[in-house]
Amino acid sequence: MKLSIMRSACGSLRIHPACPGSMVSGLIRRCLPVGPANNRLILRTASASSGGTSPKLAVSFGKPSQKGDGFDSDSSLREVVQSTKEAMLALQGRNPVVQPLLVIIQAGEDDHLLEINKKMAGMIGLNITQICLAKECSEDEIVEEVLKLNEDPRVHGVYLHLPPAYITSRVLNTIKPEKDVEGISDLNMGRLVRGHLSKGFVPPIASAVLDLLEKHDCALEGKTVLLVGGEGPLAVSLQCLIERSGMVALKGQWSSKSLRRQAMQADAVVLLGAGNMDLPPTWVRPGAAVIRCEPTQETDEHALEMSSKSGLGYLTAAYRTQNVVGSCSRWLQEQQYRPWHLHSLKLQPLTPVPSDIEISRAQTPKPVDQLAEEIGLLPEELEAYGRSKAKVRLSLLDRLHKQPDGKYVLVAGITPTPLGEGKSTVTIGLVQALSAHLKLNSFACLRQPSQGPTFGVKGGAAGGGYAQVIPMEEFNLHLTGDIHAITAANNLVAAAIDARMLHEATQSDKALFNRLVPLVNGVRRFSPIQISRLRRLGINKIDPASLTPQEVSTFVRLDLDPSKITWQRVVDTNDRFLRKITVGQASTEKGQIRETGFDIAVEVKWPVSWWIMAILGPLADSLPVTAEDLGVSGALAVLMKDAIKPTLMQTLEGTPVFVHAGPFANIAHGNSSVLADKLALKLVGRDGFVVTEAGFGADIGMEKFFNIKCRASGLRPNVVVLVATVRALKMHGGGPNVSAGAPLPKEYIDENLSLVAGGCRSNLRKQIQIAQLFGVPVVVALNVFKTDTQAEIDLVCQIAKECGASDAVPCHHWAQGGRGSLELAQAVNEAASRPSHFKFLYNIEMPIVEKIRTIAQQVYGADDIELSPEAKAKIDYYNQQGYGSLPICMAKTHLSLSHMPDKKGVPTGFVLPIRDVRASIGAGFIFPLVGTMSTMPGLPTRPCFYDIDLDPVTEEITGLF
Amino acid sequence: MKLSIMRSACGSLRIHPACPGSMVSGLIRRCLPVGPANNRLILRTASASSGGTSPKLAVSFGKPSQKGDGFDSDSSLREVVQSTKEAMLALQGRNPVVQPLLVIIQAGEDDHLLEINKKMAGMIGLNITQICLAKECSEDEIVEEVLKLNEDPRVHGVYLHLPPAYITSRVLNTIKPEKDVEGISDLNMGRLVRGHLSKGFVPPIASAVLDLLEKHDCALEGKTVLLVGGEGPLAVSLQCLIERSGMVALKGQWSSKSLRRQAMQADAVVLLGAGNMDLPPTWVRPGAAVIRCEPTQETDEHALEMSSKSGLGYLTAAYRTQNVVGSCSRWLQEQQYRPWHLHSLKLQPLTPVPSDIEISRAQTPKPVDQLAEEIGLLPEELEAYGRSKAKVRLSLLDRLHKQPDGKYVLVAGITPTPLGEGKSTVTIGLVQALSAHLKLNSFACLRQPSQGPTFGVKGGAAGGGYAQVIPMEEFNLHLTGDIHAITAANNLVAAAIDARMLHEATQSDKALFNRLVPLVNGVRRFSPIQISRLRRLGINKIDPASLTPQEVSTFVRLDLDPSKITWQRVVDTNDRFLRKITVGQASTEKGQIRETGFDIAVEVKWPVSWWIMAILGPLADSLPVTAEDLGVSGALAVLMKDAIKPTLMQTLEGTPVFVHAGPFANIAHGNSSVLADKLALKLVGRDGFVVTEAGFGADIGMEKFFNIKCRASGLRPNVVVLVATVRALKMHGGGPNVSAGAPLPKEYIDENLSLVAGGCRSNLRKQIQIAQLFGVPVVVALNVFKTDTQAEIDLVCQIAKECGASDAVPCHHWAQGGRGSLELAQAVNEAASRPSHFKFLYNIEMPIVEKIRTIAQQVYGADDIELSPEAKAKIDYYNQQGYGSLPICMAKTHLSLSHMPDKKGVPTGFVLPIRDVRASIGAGFIFPLVGTMSTMPGLPTRPCFYDIDLDPVTEEITGLF
Repeated sequence: MKLSIMRSACGSLRIHPACPGSMVSGLIRRCLPVGPANNRLILRTASASSGGTSPKLAVSFGKPSQKGDGFDSDSSLREVVQSTKEAMLALQGRNPVVQPLLVIIQAGEDDHLLEINKKMAGMIGLNITQICLAKECSEDEIVEEVLKLNEDPRVHGVYLHLPPAYITSRVLNTIKPEKDVEGISDLNMGRLVRGHLSKGFVPPIASAVLDLLEKHDCALEGKTVLLVGGEGPLAVSLQCLIERSGMVALKGQWSSKSLRRQAMQADAVVLLGAGNMDLPPTWVRPGAAVIRCEPTQETDEHALEMSSKSGLGYLTAAYRTQNVVGSCSRWLQEQQYRPWHLHSLKLQPLTPVPSDIEISRAQTPKPVDQLAEEIGLLPEELEAYGRSKAKVRLSLLDRLHKQPDGKYVLVAGITPTPLGEGKSTVTIGLVQALSAHLKLNSFACLRQPSQGPTFGVKGGAAGGGYAQVIPMEEFNLHLTGDIHAITAANNLVAAAIDARMLHEATQSDKALFNRLVPLVNGVRRFSPIQISRLRRLGINKIDPASLTPQEVSTFVRLDLDPSKITWQRVVDTNDRFLRKITVGQASTEKGQIRETGFDIAVEVKWPVSWWIMAILGPLADSLPVTAEDLGVSGALAVLMKDAIKPTLMQTLEGTPVFVHAGPFANIAHGNSSVLADKLALKLVGRDGFVVTEAGFGADIGMEKFFNIKCRASGLRPNVVVLVATVRALKMHGGGPNVSAGAPLPKEYIDENLSLVAGGCRSNLRKQIQIAQLFGVPVVVALNVFKTDTQAEIDLVCQIAKECGASDAVPCHHWAQGGRGSLELAQAVNEAASRPSHFKFLYNIEMPIVEKIRTIAQQVYGADDIELSPEAKAKIDYYNQQGYGSLPICMAKTHLSLSHMPDKKGVPTGFVLPIRDVRASIGAGFIFPLVGTMSTMPGLPTRPCFYDIDLDPVTEEITGLF
Repeated sequence: MKLSIMRSACGSLRIHPACPGSMVSGLIRRCLPVGPANNRLILRTASASSGGTSPKLAVSFGKPSQKGDGFDSDSSLREVVQSTKEAMLALQGRNPVVQPLLVIIQAGEDDHLLEINKKMAGMIGLNITQICLAKECSEDEIVEEVLKLNEDPRVHGVYLHLPPAYITSRVLNTIKPEKDVEGISDLNMGRLVRGHLSKGFVPPIASAVLDLLEKHDCALEGKTVLLVGGEGPLAVSLQCLIERSGMVALKGQWSSKSLRRQAMQADAVVLLGAGNMDLPPTWVRPGAAVIRCEPTQETDEHALEMSSKSGLGYLTAAYRTQNVVGSCSRWLQEQQYRPWHLHSLKLQPLTPVPSDIEISRAQTPKPVDQLAEEIGLLPEELEAYGRSKAKVRLSLLDRLHKQPDGKYVLVAGITPTPLGEGKSTVTIGLVQALSAHLKLNSFACLRQPSQGPTFGVKGGAAGGGYAQVIPMEEFNLHLTGDIHAITAANNLVAAAIDARMLHEATQSDKALFNRLVPLVNGVRRFSPIQISRLRRLGINKIDPASLTPQEVSTFVRLDLDPSKITWQRVVDTNDRFLRKITVGQASTEKGQIRETGFDIAVEVKWPVSWWIMAILGPLADSLPVTAEDLGVSGALAVLMKDAIKPTLMQTLEGTPVFVHAGPFANIAHGNSSVLADKLALKLVGRDGFVVTEAGFGADIGMEKFFNIKCRASGLRPNVVVLVATVRALKMHGGGPNVSAGAPLPKEYIDENLSLVAGGCRSNLRKQIQIAQLFGVPVVVALNVFKTDTQAEIDLVCQIAKECGASDAVPCHHWAQGGRGSLELAQAVNEAASRPSHFKFLYNIEMPIVEKIRTIAQQVYGADDIELSPEAKAKIDYYNQQGYGSLPICMAKTHLSLSHMPDKKGVPTGFVLPIRDVRASIGAGFIFPLVGTMSTMPGLPTRPCFYDIDLDPVTEEITGLF
């Protein structure tokens, strides 16, 4: 932008040469009454190079405004610079790391105007990056650069310092409106016109012109400004600004016969696109301001020189920096904690409640990018996968690291029937109530379900009824491929282990070495992974030729012991025939057969902190073998690079959900990922809630959640929600067996208060006590079924409170959605306001046996534990290997507090048998096996998949629960 | 919008009651010179209910304009209606299925203005949908409705007929600008201001007012229009329109002292937001028009009545319908074939050429939604997976079914060395040249690479050097999960087969039946899948109780024969130990052990048409067993529902690529999917090109491409590009062995014209002849390496042309990108303009043996074939089962035209041994095995993964080729 100020006697108007071009040149003059004293052209020298006396501005700011000039551009400049500097300080106080950055795209070398902008930026402390394209650059090239800047979160403003012909509609509308500090995009122009200025930007040139008008020594309030010529955006924006300042804007045309009259009546005249036209001096009223804004070409040296010497060039540059600082400030503001403006989706529950898939399909999810915006995610933090799910980038944790965490709520349960008691539906109903009804920021964090049970027996895990994650079929199927990625990583390790054993068995040290460290272009070199292994072996050499034969042997041989390899392959299918298999039977494997098996993929021991399992566990008699030793560590990281990011989805009422990690709760720890919880706690902010679920009863999932997951994450729970059902309570109170597929006995359908009371006073009381062992307040959530009577419901709530629950409330989320969980949400909110005195059940440094005993006695109620010789030997071995101080991940049935699935209520007088103990060093825990736990479910005679189908026309899924 | 027209004498101005509100009421009057004859208020009755005499308009359009009124709104109306009707006709001529649809969101019941709009729509033939919200609806509810309409491709315009307080900035900016037919969103306002009218919409009320001004009996061209009051968008848009029509717009304020003077000078006055203000009659010049636009409330019955009786209400409604028809027309236009405005990414190739991953990472891909828009995809046809890849919905095929297909180019090769000769790089270099340099629409269609080789031996498949698909790490890893989905589907079938055998072996007919058809709420019912099986068994019953014991037995028993089961499990890892395994060894499987194995996932026999393999192949002695018999067909469809959609990516130069399906070319057919090719052929349009690749040499991939894929798809190739390298030619000319990992012998580094000539006159000539067997022109592409000499290059091109190639050119895409393939692109463009006389090599009805013999003799050059007894028996069995007329998918080494990998050049005098023959009925072909083909690669001693790593900070992958 080129603006020059000059003061002129009316008798000697300076005619500016007309040139079409990109830059707007402002020529301001003050028309004084004709008189000899004023009959000179005076250029006010506000050039950067002249000395200055204005103390507030840098030396480069020229001499101070001369009294009587009419225009006081120096004082304007001082004010803009000062306020921008203050905004800068405020910005850096809020976030010292962020630096506002203006990027200039230019064609060719710097000109004087760019110099002005750079000086101004320097004065404010603004960073500038210049992108110099060739003089003859193409539209595509400009667009390409703009696109890159759009994506770059460090950039807060883009200034196209280009010839006008280059700034096409496509170019200017490619700039992201929030970085369009020139206010030239169609959207920002519309915002200006409509007065939506909190989002758009005022073009700096318009701000500068307006400023001069406002600073005109006789204030222009109520006065008339004539805009002559120009129909373009500059005219429109000026007109809007002028009118909004309380002046009257008139428009005149050069060709209009009434121009003279209009000019004579105006208090100020702004000449737009005047070319070499000018108003005859006599047309301008004495005392009126005349401002000239016209396009000039860069090659117009004269115009350039004039603008560089003028103060208006500086003023425009100053407004530009102000816009950039403002843009950065808005960007930071968007990242501040705020109660979400969550647009919740309306539910209109039907009776009877339709099938889960019908309910899910009847609700249209919000576009996931809209949900993300509502909860304060930046566009660059989101990776959409289709329209209804997205990965969230972990950079979010850095951005929000100063934000206080929200409240952390764990949903656990009493010992369930084989039908499940609805922890997932309670979790989802609770966040629907908190977010959509109480308007408290809240997030649910869930595990990704395995496709095994989806097509096998259990059914989905997206909740149910009117408390679901949608679209539920996406949730229950591949989702964003995390389990597939885990499967691929796990199986690559397995393949590498077997292949390595074969290669070591069939090759000499030298042959192995020559292949592991091959000649490439005549040179052998260790890879970084190999140098790292050498270090661990105590061989500090980097020249392959320098290894002794003994060192070569140590380096090339892992000497894996097939009998010690516990690393199984996995598949996300209920495939019972893979439980125990013999591999390596093809002749190509030269007799290296061995017995092994497949686990279901979700039995992979997911590290709670999700980092790549660096240590593959004890596979040999020597040191533990690491992924690095197999050379596969980098490949694992690469395979898991997206799986490490949680997936954002939403509930039926449009509230956010993270889905991340999917371990089963019997052998694995049964919790969703720490990363998802941490991200969610930041996103909900201090007054918000993150609700997550631990698999199975509180004795299983909750114990692991506290002792393993909270220990690893450092996060502390505020409230435990303990889910109970009348059905399960009756079972614990002595009701007959409940099994999947069989009709429910009538005790479960008719009212039976004594069975209910029995269950409450046994299993429910014990599970409340378990939560209290950890010092966390408990709210009992009774998941109401339609067969429950009011007397039964009241009885459960009454006894639960007697047993020490902070509160106990019935929940109707399944039939009513969040509205049906309002009471629970209020109880949780209330309980979360009380102090929580969280403590671990055991000290991590206790011996392994003691840790197991503590859990068995205090949680399960066992008299003692009994270790098999095998278990004893393993514990000794782990202690000796230095794994003694890992936490314990018990593998026990979920159908009883004891190891005997048919013992309901609160079993006593039993000794817990520990059949075997295994270690998942990479994941970071020891897992004792109590009785026989299958790590691979089977398909029943009639699996779920019999009912599942896809409509080929609508692409709708049917029969998925 | 409420607009009323009235004609008034100056002496009796009609003061309209002032009411703030949403609707704009236009009151137009004509000020005539004062005189008794005109001293009456005349309402022009343009109401819908009065009879009409204007033959062109519907009866409801009131009496014709009265001469001398000054305003001829009926003639305006007629013109708008007429032109909109014509646009409607043109639209329906182009696409009879599409119906323009306006959706009205209203709060409460219809009012008169809505009636007008509905009548107008009826007259034009426009569809209208009304969404009636409650009178007290919330912003969220309105936004939710708007969001749904945004997503709905059937909706072309949204009209918010709501109280003004409801139309918040959030609401109006939620409307998709392309459906904002009111022109009220910030973006459309900006477009109007800037004159970007090809994209935005003019507010109908502004069009109507302008129309009246223009139709004023003394034309207003050059005249002055005074806009009084109002700073809002309506004022701005009117002003822009007025100025653009060559009139002069003046703005005046009610409070301004000069208003009288301004009004006196104006040729027309438009009163905005006047409330109950009005201009004194004496202020208005005789003959000047006065138009009154003011907000009124819906409850203002008087205003309503007036507007419903006025013609301006109709005129505004007419412009609204015009905008809707225009919106629909634009929408259709976007779907028309057009040369793409592809924004190509600039390449600046470095020397020496960096690693593939470095080149890929140095280029920022365009956002995939931008690429999609550039190639004519609609937003709703895209499902983004992150920023650089997206699934494309198959509805595209319906939308473009009338579009002519582009040219279809197959890239095949001569018999390769084990190092590969660069078919993928040629494919990608060719589309880069066609799209980015010749500006011809073009698409590459590629297979998705297997992760096995990625981490094993071969390396990636995204091309290489400056001809790559980016981001290459995405391409080479999980991509959008298709292979994982195929794996899951395949393994679910395997698990179901084994589980079924176990269940049948261990249960009585009755027990099986009771489980397969369980009691649910006391009732047994067959599922649709089961009824379908019963039908196939000839049992036409639907009541489970009515089956005879024999029928029960027939129904429940598949009687699978373990020795006949060829369905293997798969895994996408090079896991050699799974080649031959024994499963079912756990005690839970009750001794049902059997030998089986895993294939690599990409050996799955992908049906070329991609439909779910309904028939699992011969598994038993009886009828072929189908997925339905196992109950698993729906689950397979569900697992594959996303995998069926091709994935859109881009080349280094920003040109589009489809990645879809990934079968290996040795046992499988080695071609990408038919669906992707069909979609791409529609997208490029008549003058465009789709380039796809067939695995290995022309004898393998190309033969299968023509005989299997083209037969199934009905698509016909226009050109074959045959890729050769000097290296491979020297090998065929008698050069020493080439093997992966070993240094190249010097014959391959130094110039050796006689070896080159030998290779050209043997293998190259033969492969050209093979392509000519199918009647398709051949262009030889010599993939130039830096060791190739000019003499060698010239020799290859010369001999290739002598051997019948249409053209033969060197390609430098690896070092130079598309620019290096310009010659090839021109040659292909030229060859594609010649007629292609495509024919199949064999008739599908020929006996299986004859089809195999035809391929062996005509393609491989064998003297004859020799069938093993096993192969013979299988062929008899397939013939007997009715599979005799399936095409043949030969499983043969790719390293020789013969079955002997070490026989280079053109082997002769051999008999091709057919060891075995298998059938993949679901995929639709018979595959004879020639020699031993491994279906599961192994990991070498030092797999690729040793070099692969992930930078934990930048998340960048290193070492991936």
